[in-house]
Amino acid sequence: MPGTWFSEKQLDSLAISCVVKKILHSERTPYQQIKVLDTDPFGLMLALDDVIQTTVFDEFAYHEMIALVPLNVHPDPKRILVIGGGDGGTVRECLRHPSPEEVTLVEIDARVVEVSRQYLPQLSSGLDDPRVKICYEDGTKYLKGKESAYDVIIVDSTDPVGPARGLFEEPFYRQIERALAPEGILVAQTESPFYNLDLIKKVFATWRGIFPTVRIYEAVIPSYPGGLWTFTLGSKKHDPVAVRGQVVAAGRYYSPAVHQAAFVLPNFLQGAVR
Amino acid sequence: MPGTWFSEKQLDSLAISCVVKKILHSERTPYQQIKVLDTDPFGLMLALDDVIQTTVFDEFAYHEMIALVPLNVHPDPKRILVIGGGDGGTVRECLRHPSPEEVTLVEIDARVVEVSRQYLPQLSSGLDDPRVKICYEDGTKYLKGKESAYDVIIVDSTDPVGPARGLFEEPFYRQIERALAPEGILVAQTESPFYNLDLIKKVFATWRGIFPTVRIYEAVIPSYPGGLWTFTLGSKKHDPVAVRGQVVAAGRYYSPAVHQAAFVLPNFLQGAVR
Repeated sequence: MPGTWFSEKQLDSLAISCVVKKILHSERTPYQQIKVLDTDPFGLMLALDDVIQTTVFDEFAYHEMIALVPLNVHPDPKRILVIGGGDGGTVRECLRHPSPEEVTLVEIDARVVEVSRQYLPQLSSGLDDPRVKICYEDGTKYLKGKESAYDVIIVDSTDPVGPARGLFEEPFYRQIERALAPEGILVAQTESPFYNLDLIKKVFATWRGIFPTVRIYEAVIPSYPGGLWTFTLGSKKHDPVAVRGQVVAAGRYYSPAVHQAAFVLPNFLQGAVR
Repeated sequence: MPGTWFSEKQLDSLAISCVVKKILHSERTPYQQIKVLDTDPFGLMLALDDVIQTTVFDEFAYHEMIALVPLNVHPDPKRILVIGGGDGGTVRECLRHPSPEEVTLVEIDARVVEVSRQYLPQLSSGLDDPRVKICYEDGTKYLKGKESAYDVIIVDSTDPVGPARGLFEEPFYRQIERALAPEGILVAQTESPFYNLDLIKKVFATWRGIFPTVRIYEAVIPSYPGGLWTFTLGSKKHDPVAVRGQVVAAGRYYSPAVHQAAFVLPNFLQGAVR
């Protein structure tokens, strides 16, 4: 294939490749390699350790679905915590909802935020909003001693290797449960049902021991392995499938109808998380 | 990337690559290049002109959704016509439904059927069923003079280049309308909403001039570009979202709930086919 290509090994035996028009940025931080590439067909792309995190082409699907589903389930989500998500896309979507008075972003790697501010304003624009507070800290450390402090917590992590490993473990989820108010909702990205079904089952089983209601929902993000992606939602009180509160209905991916349909899972996945 | 890889250029700027364990078959017919590969992670794969048609890993999603949706919408689908789909997967799913008395497969390239019989029994097993009739002919020629002959017609075509080009044109769709009984239903695979939105809009607009009801539904097939795939359904009488008749409920992907949710489209796609 002539030309310059970026390739991600999505599995040992599976790769996705796209054309690189320009390498805008590349650096190694204490945590990871950060790259910003201008690509076809994905436009601007953020890659961490050569794994695609987000692209301007399809980030709307991921960020709308990770943020608007929990915010539209909670009747009045005033205090939001986003763990990971240093690109700012999830914060941007939270700010489109009328309820939040405070959105805290906890990102372990300050350089992800700085690089996103510089090269990806489409994603990071909301980070200068006065309602946003940014803490550069490990998510598990940040949560120490927090009790009933948030209405919605969103774990917008990288894959469960490297710096995000602890964000897929039971002690972290129990910290989150304590940090959530009595009507609180937790959402985490939980990878592909085609390629990571064991991880999804493990997270689901763990959360079932922590939250009264646990449900999985899905969205399609073409630049992620297999396209189909899962989000796991734990709720202390509210039914995740119902849409209530001051709903944000307008999105390129999200709608109240999409919200409800997203909880209807392919039979093989539904059968795995009964 | 060390080892032997199969790469498909899904777009000029996008490729998917998987590991090849064994090349089981490769031949050039008058219509196309046929390959059967044993791969990771997709298992056995059928490729035509180096475009992935179907893999043992994820074919259930495609074949269940292209076949069981129309068969469960029609109250008693006795006469089925499948155009394309020489691998046999769509025919196999039709035969799981209790209604069909006759399933006709019209495939332009006899070698696709023969190769599938030899290497892909998981897909082709149903082709020896006494209810199945196979015609090796171009779909547009086969339909000449057919009137009110079928309850469900499924267009299981390759992409709209090469031998399948005519299967995306208005004269073909008008032939199908005539060949369908008064309660008849047409379903066709109509590519990716992320990469082929113009095609989807064109097919939708054309069908709207032919069928009283036209709806788009979706499924995720990881080995296809972007994962998310559309099917367009034209119905002379029955509401496509309702499930009726002697329903087939058991599938790895399909369920009556998945059937209904599949018609709820991401907002950008819904907005494009209003």
